Amino acid sequence: MSPKITVELLRQLRQGMRNCKYFSEPIQAYIVPSGDAHQSEYIAPCDCRREFICGFNGSAGTAIVTEQYAAMWTDGRYFLQASQQMDNNWTLMKMGLKETPSQEDWLISILPENSRVGVDPWIIAADQWKNMSRALTSAGHSLVAVQDNLIDVVWMDRPERPSTQLRNLGLEYTGLSWQDKITALRAKMTKRKVSWFVATALDEIAWLFNLRGADIEYNPVFFAYAIVGMNTIRLFVDLKRLADPALRDHLQLDSPCKPDMSIRTYPYESVYAELQAVCAAHSPKDKVWICDKASCALTQVIPKAHRTPIPYTPLCLAKAVKNATEIQGMKKAHIKDATALCELFAWLEKEIPKGIVTEISAADKAEELRSQQKDFVGLSFPTISSVGPNGAIIHYRPLPETNRTLSLNEVYLIDSGAQYVDGTTDVTRTMHFGTPSAYEKECFTYVLKGHIAVSAAVFPNGTKGHLLDSFARAALWESGLDYLHGTGHGVGCFLNVHEGPCGISYKTFADEPLEAGMIVSDEPGYYEDGSFGIRIENVVLVVPAMPKYNYRNRGSLTFEPLTLVPIQVKMMNTELLTQKERDWVNEYHKMCREVVGAEMERQGRKEGLEWLIRETQPIV
Amino acid sequence: MSPKITVELLRQLRQGMRNCKYFSEPIQAYIVPSGDAHQSEYIAPCDCRREFICGFNGSAGTAIVTEQYAAMWTDGRYFLQASQQMDNNWTLMKMGLKETPSQEDWLISILPENSRVGVDPWIIAADQWKNMSRALTSAGHSLVAVQDNLIDVVWMDRPERPSTQLRNLGLEYTGLSWQDKITALRAKMTKRKVSWFVATALDEIAWLFNLRGADIEYNPVFFAYAIVGMNTIRLFVDLKRLADPALRDHLQLDSPCKPDMSIRTYPYESVYAELQAVCAAHSPKDKVWICDKASCALTQVIPKAHRTPIPYTPLCLAKAVKNATEIQGMKKAHIKDATALCELFAWLEKEIPKGIVTEISAADKAEELRSQQKDFVGLSFPTISSVGPNGAIIHYRPLPETNRTLSLNEVYLIDSGAQYVDGTTDVTRTMHFGTPSAYEKECFTYVLKGHIAVSAAVFPNGTKGHLLDSFARAALWESGLDYLHGTGHGVGCFLNVHEGPCGISYKTFADEPLEAGMIVSDEPGYYEDGSFGIRIENVVLVVPAMPKYNYRNRGSLTFEPLTLVPIQVKMMNTELLTQKERDWVNEYHKMCREVVGAEMERQGRKEGLEWLIRETQPIV
Repeated sequence: MSPKITVELLRQLRQGMRNCKYFSEPIQAYIVPSGDAHQSEYIAPCDCRREFICGFNGSAGTAIVTEQYAAMWTDGRYFLQASQQMDNNWTLMKMGLKETPSQEDWLISILPENSRVGVDPWIIAADQWKNMSRALTSAGHSLVAVQDNLIDVVWMDRPERPSTQLRNLGLEYTGLSWQDKITALRAKMTKRKVSWFVATALDEIAWLFNLRGADIEYNPVFFAYAIVGMNTIRLFVDLKRLADPALRDHLQLDSPCKPDMSIRTYPYESVYAELQAVCAAHSPKDKVWICDKASCALTQVIPKAHRTPIPYTPLCLAKAVKNATEIQGMKKAHIKDATALCELFAWLEKEIPKGIVTEISAADKAEELRSQQKDFVGLSFPTISSVGPNGAIIHYRPLPETNRTLSLNEVYLIDSGAQYVDGTTDVTRTMHFGTPSAYEKECFTYVLKGHIAVSAAVFPNGTKGHLLDSFARAALWESGLDYLHGTGHGVGCFLNVHEGPCGISYKTFADEPLEAGMIVSDEPGYYEDGSFGIRIENVVLVVPAMPKYNYRNRGSLTFEPLTLVPIQVKMMNTELLTQKERDWVNEYHKMCREVVGAEMERQGRKEGLEWLIRETQPIV
Repeated sequence: MSPKITVELLRQLRQGMRNCKYFSEPIQAYIVPSGDAHQSEYIAPCDCRREFICGFNGSAGTAIVTEQYAAMWTDGRYFLQASQQMDNNWTLMKMGLKETPSQEDWLISILPENSRVGVDPWIIAADQWKNMSRALTSAGHSLVAVQDNLIDVVWMDRPERPSTQLRNLGLEYTGLSWQDKITALRAKMTKRKVSWFVATALDEIAWLFNLRGADIEYNPVFFAYAIVGMNTIRLFVDLKRLADPALRDHLQLDSPCKPDMSIRTYPYESVYAELQAVCAAHSPKDKVWICDKASCALTQVIPKAHRTPIPYTPLCLAKAVKNATEIQGMKKAHIKDATALCELFAWLEKEIPKGIVTEISAADKAEELRSQQKDFVGLSFPTISSVGPNGAIIHYRPLPETNRTLSLNEVYLIDSGAQYVDGTTDVTRTMHFGTPSAYEKECFTYVLKGHIAVSAAVFPNGTKGHLLDSFARAALWESGLDYLHGTGHGVGCFLNVHEGPCGISYKTFADEPLEAGMIVSDEPGYYEDGSFGIRIENVVLVVPAMPKYNYRNRGSLTFEPLTLVPIQVKMMNTELLTQKERDWVNEYHKMCREVVGAEMERQGRKEGLEWLIRETQPIV
């Protein structure tokens, strides 16, 4: 990995910062956040502005350029990668270390008095704008919205915004028509006395209209906005995409059944003007719901008196609780995915001894096997295929220059998943194809104990996921070990592999309570820098539990694993497991054998089936 | 318990709300918080304004009176008690239930447009004022500071503010002189570039000056404020209290050794004017530290540009981490306290069959036995002595009209503690003097499993207490049970029995990380309304742990019980315990027998000693 040379780019950007074509007065600093106008986690190439200006292409990071300095903030996952991808013009700001200043503190410490700090209001979230603006103002500076993006000005070969083909999903996949979703949304609006709802998150818009796109790699979404009123629906999208008659029929564009279900379509770019017009035409009593993570630009169109910012939108919550059809789809997708993975592991066992399987070729094989499954659409995130020390890099992605060969001597960690039309998968298995050391087995077993502790936990209705996080760590903690990431994230249904508003993490206190039908991952790990990484990840469904008692009629919940891929017994020190834990492993493996075995048989996948049967023998 | 009749009081208060003697325009609602000007949890009789107006005397609750309504918010601990103590003029607002509106939402839903909501700025914390004010303003209303307290106006026989004798503590109790504490505070101020620190919490002021009072029952504190500058110390206190030569000597009032350690004393009431003068005499660059929980009145004296609000003061943090002398004192206090309790339980066993021991007489006996111990000062909170169904009322306090007789047929729960000059105690034991039912034993055992899970937990340095809360619940949850309170609170050293900034609760996310030397309680419970209550509480000390590994050199912590009172084996279903849990019980009981046994022998308390030895036999 050689760093990107940024001398000339920075010179041009600084020229832009002084150029009064873009603002009334020059700005002394320019912030380049990593998101797009929809605060997406994964972004399209045209939105990779932070990567363009500094070279660092990780998923999280903010660049700030002043007349004299250029600095980039990222977190512990990316310290190494960022230091390799950025040249000497850039200072790496290691977030989470005590000595690292916040962006605000750094700006305040280096800026001349009364400085103006610019940012594109479309790619900074309203809540971030508010915090940054308050900090700068209190130090005598100001945060300025720069309408022309100064990176785009110097980015000569910036790609076009994607406009891929849209796919409409029928009731057999969604379980609920978009009309019913609109009706449910309006009922919530009525209850909270809100007249308008502005949808800006791409996965929420895709979910609401039962549409999917392919504008962003790994995420089946499309660039759009929506404004839903009590009698109107406005959809903002590249209008060329709506030519397909099946699509027009799905959205009832030409012959709406009911007037309040008539969708008016507008060009993607016109959302600003149209929202302005909506607000202007109504009294401030007509409240507008918008997520506080929506772009500052769009949020500020709404006069403050109209605005009702919310941390999570009603769509985000509704989408998180999967209906029976979605759950069925997710189960089917996970069975197909397990079939592909069992086949992969059988293949690896056979091929590794030949010494020619690499991290990249293993990942490619996994993709190939998945792509043979029905309704496969693509991967749900870049496959983490990592051998030995690479496994300790939590967000590793094999590149030609880091690619290691799988062997009988090192631990192999593969974290991968796919998009199928009926569901999204995300699974991590850690395996040894030779003989693991006692220490590797010990660590693996602690991680497994944590995985089981979460998966088998019974907890009251209304419990927030962050209260379960310590269960995943207790066994590691008892031996003085830990892992520095959360334990689980929400998973979409043929949507983003990471979604809110629920999760299992010590960091999240604003998460919504878990409820039956929510789907999250359960993925504790342990990472020994320079030697190996361990992670055991299943996607699990929140289901009602029926314990002996029912305190205050609250009801209880637990998890049902959707992922059905054997957990390698060879890596376990079964003496460290309690009887309950051994029972859990055997019960889980029985389920893998029965459910996935039947599918493999049906598909005639003999080698995988043999591997599955061998790997799911009960432990004693 | 019969409710307080409030018709006439509410009429008078509403008259005050309309009386323009107190403000420029009438107010439409008046908020009566439960705290005093120092945001104390326990308050002096003169500050019990919320109790005076509505009758409810629990420790937490806020009353709001409008022209038409009167409502009082409290939490799950007090639903029953509040409903019994308030008459029909009051609506009980059950906090934590989904259908219960917040105070803000309720006000907004019932107030006429442009309403003015009044509150005494001295008894509302700055952060609460801010939130309430923001919510009301956004709905077109306003929050108004009413300087005359409208409750005091109608409270004819309001008691005087107490001014009890002060006691100075020597190094043998504190381990650190007040001068050293001032020096440490100033070092933190220098580091954070702060010029002034305003101390408003009574326990912080008592701790800082190594002084104790008795102004508030159970809490050895005294009404005071302090302003510490880099060269000056201002103490605001009823000056009559400083006449004692020993006290003057302790504070070096007449002959300070060093000029920057010279304490200037001022009348308690002059803090407002003096703080105003301090701020006026200095530039806004001189920052002032004040807790964001300090009173709104005092906070707003400091011009916004000077103000640096903090969630916890440096004193709060320093006080929480006990030094070696304080830990020794706490240990001694707990041994004395255990001696008294063992003696009590032996006495109860003998007396209960006679049918004459009541909740009140048992509590009195406990106090009598404690008072025989060296350096006893008083109780640390009102004794919860509860039989059968009364045990399910979490913050129960026996009154003549609720007083039940202890018997061989019901569970007895006693939660009690004392102040000794060397330390503060707080212990809960749940016992049966006949034969407990299988269900009572089962529930007790789940609670015990939770208690042990926290007490024996090993966790990394830097872990916040709230991450341990679920450990206490896992066994209960597995059977569909739970308890609706936190698991632990910080405990002061001859100071308040509840103190911040650490604790163990699912509700607290702003708690400070646990560190060695901190002292908290570990008190899971289970409550079956109408039948019984179970709680097992020890005070525990955070100590370093030495597990097998040491990930990233972070170090590990665990707890050491300071409370040394046997946990009744008769209440346990030992079959539900794991071997590890049985070992913990035996190890704990061995420690009780050895440490407390030696003290009982020394004191010649034969009956208690016999009881102790019998109750600490190992289980198998």
